[in-house]
Amino acid sequence: MTRHNSLRSALTFEEVRSVSPALEKYTLDVVAGNLWKRPDLSPRDRSIVTLSVLIARNQTIGMLHYFNVALDSGLKAGEISEIINHLAFYAGWCNAFSAVAIVKDIFAQRGIGMDQLPEVSPQLLPMDQAAEERRAAAVQESAGPISPGLVQFTGEVLFKNLWLRPGLALRDRSLVTVSALIANGQAAQIPFHLNKAMDNGLSRTQVSELITHIAFYAGWPNAFSAVPVVKSVFDSRPK
Amino acid sequence: MTRHNSLRSALTFEEVRSVSPALEKYTLDVVAGNLWKRPDLSPRDRSIVTLSVLIARNQTIGMLHYFNVALDSGLKAGEISEIINHLAFYAGWCNAFSAVAIVKDIFAQRGIGMDQLPEVSPQLLPMDQAAEERRAAAVQESAGPISPGLVQFTGEVLFKNLWLRPGLALRDRSLVTVSALIANGQAAQIPFHLNKAMDNGLSRTQVSELITHIAFYAGWPNAFSAVPVVKSVFDSRPK
Amino acid sequence: MTRHNSLRSALTFEEVRSVSPALEKYTLDVVAGNLWKRPDLSPRDRSIVTLSVLIARNQTIGMLHYFNVALDSGLKAGEISEIINHLAFYAGWCNAFSAVAIVKDIFAQRGIGMDQLPEVSPQLLPMDQAAEERRAAAVQESAGPISPGLVQFTGEVLFKNLWLRPGLALRDRSLVTVSALIANGQAAQIPFHLNKAMDNGLSRTQVSELITHIAFYAGWPNAFSAVPVVKSVFDSRPK
Repeated sequence: MTRHNSLRSALTFEEVRSVSPALEKYTLDVVAGNLWKRPDLSPRDRSIVTLSVLIARNQTIGMLHYFNVALDSGLKAGEISEIINHLAFYAGWCNAFSAVAIVKDIFAQRGIGMDQLPEVSPQLLPMDQAAEERRAAAVQESAGPISPGLVQFTGEVLFKNLWLRPGLALRDRSLVTVSALIANGQAAQIPFHLNKAMDNGLSRTQVSELITHIAFYAGWPNAFSAVPVVKSVFDSRPK
Repeated sequence: MTRHNSLRSALTFEEVRSVSPALEKYTLDVVAGNLWKRPDLSPRDRSIVTLSVLIARNQTIGMLHYFNVALDSGLKAGEISEIINHLAFYAGWCNAFSAVAIVKDIFAQRGIGMDQLPEVSPQLLPMDQAAEERRAAAVQESAGPISPGLVQFTGEVLFKNLWLRPGLALRDRSLVTVSALIANGQAAQIPFHLNKAMDNGLSRTQVSELITHIAFYAGWPNAFSAVPVVKSVFDSRPK
Repeated sequence: MTRHNSLRSALTFEEVRSVSPALEKYTLDVVAGNLWKRPDLSPRDRSIVTLSVLIARNQTIGMLHYFNVALDSGLKAGEISEIINHLAFYAGWCNAFSAVAIVKDIFAQRGIGMDQLPEVSPQLLPMDQAAEERRAAAVQESAGPISPGLVQFTGEVLFKNLWLRPGLALRDRSLVTVSALIANGQAAQIPFHLNKAMDNGLSRTQVSELITHIAFYAGWPNAFSAVPVVKSVFDSRPK
């Protein structure tokens, strides 16, 4: 279909069919033919969500296909670079490394070099000083007496550096984070980041569709477990 | 031992011994020599549970061995096909694909072709209309305002299609689902599916032994975290 | 750097840089250059924690590197053997097998043979009879009516055998267990094992730093979800 077809799947449709003809059919009709075409999230957003779920759950088998889908859906190489970097912190260091092991070959094959990747130390986005002070105070109160090291790295490395890197829009960074949290069933961490995501521009309709999309990639139970938490966040915000 | 011996393990006992002689001994004496021979779950049931746990947790290293054990324990190729298809929805799409990548070779080596696999669109089992209406109403109330897409796919694709596919008995489909939920620590989703499993014929004794079995394959913490949830379900049902 | 350099990483720094120069920089400056040098946990302790997280989360991509780091940090081959064996029970049987698949080659390359590994049936450590009776009674009360098999294996195989194997100090065995629980977000199982770990000699300062360390390897959300549980344990113990 595209010049990257040879890279597109670690698994062919014929192979899926040889084990489960029904799974091939659901993949074609329900996932590719319906889910990805629903209007409330763009293909670019669905790519961000799917990549975040795969990286957060360390599911390398889908990465070759979906990193290519992402690049073909308008996500830039530099944004993919930042998504992986972001998820090192939010999903675990080796989750990021597993993604690097796949993406390095995709970048090489597409001729994507260092000039298309975000620099190490860019000019950071301006910080919302008041919001950061509220966040820091809340974390200091809850986690300070238990793990001062965690509190320190969270402030200095995450919120005063990682989150301010300009290579990925704040709204997309939030989309990555919330997707990873839902995909891993980390309900307790959802409210802070979902509020931040909606402050950063994610709409209720997009959140609703995000849950629908994640159901397929992280399984129905993770989607349903997110519902009451998302409801509590929706209820707590002005309409 | 069987004609598929060459395929039986990605890891030999000698290799396990070269890292941990104790682990080899526990595997032989406690897991193979004791757990799998306990009477409250048949080897076929234990195979269903084990495969569900491995697929739900994406643990490919054990799949070659346990898919072959399953086929040798009376599970049919068509049932394995349905288990994988079912877990695409309950564990995540790429979990199913990782299993396909292993099973396609096992099927090929055993000469299992399309004629032994469930067709794409079989005559569906009759639906329990009243139960489905209760389920749909409950889900609409809890999740409808938050994610209408999730509610729609849950009804149309899962409960009016997937669950009614005749290639896997309802009781076995429930066994797959509950095993996956316990294996991934998804306590909030256990009550609905455990009640359904017991309505579908899973006995208290089998549930008790299911937890025991899963402890070995998903780790003790997941087994113990299931205990209070299972207790609440047992307590809520007539004896 | 060492004679095992060729084995050190499945991924080179150059490869990480080719996808995310920032991730390489964070790895060098924050993880290697800062985190691992913080004083509250020794490199040997950090190795135990890191290996436990990687095994508990089945993250094979980091294992080659970190098993070698562990051996170079003073962890003995026999202790690594026991860590893997221990996590078969606390993280799942195939998690241990995935680690074996990596470690067998490392042991072979370093010439580590059976003479350096713990024997199958060593003289067990003396059991704290009173503590074991309290544990057994509590588990019998909570889990006995639900899963007698689980209760039986927990007593006979885990607490009267595995935990008493002398190849890994009790304090280190606890460190492995608590690390795995935090890394997999199994909050409900943390209090018992964290209390046991602190009874076995893990200090508050070490627990604080443990959370900091795990944030990097299991992701920030798992670290933050552990905080309130750890707080409740700290609060319940005499200062």
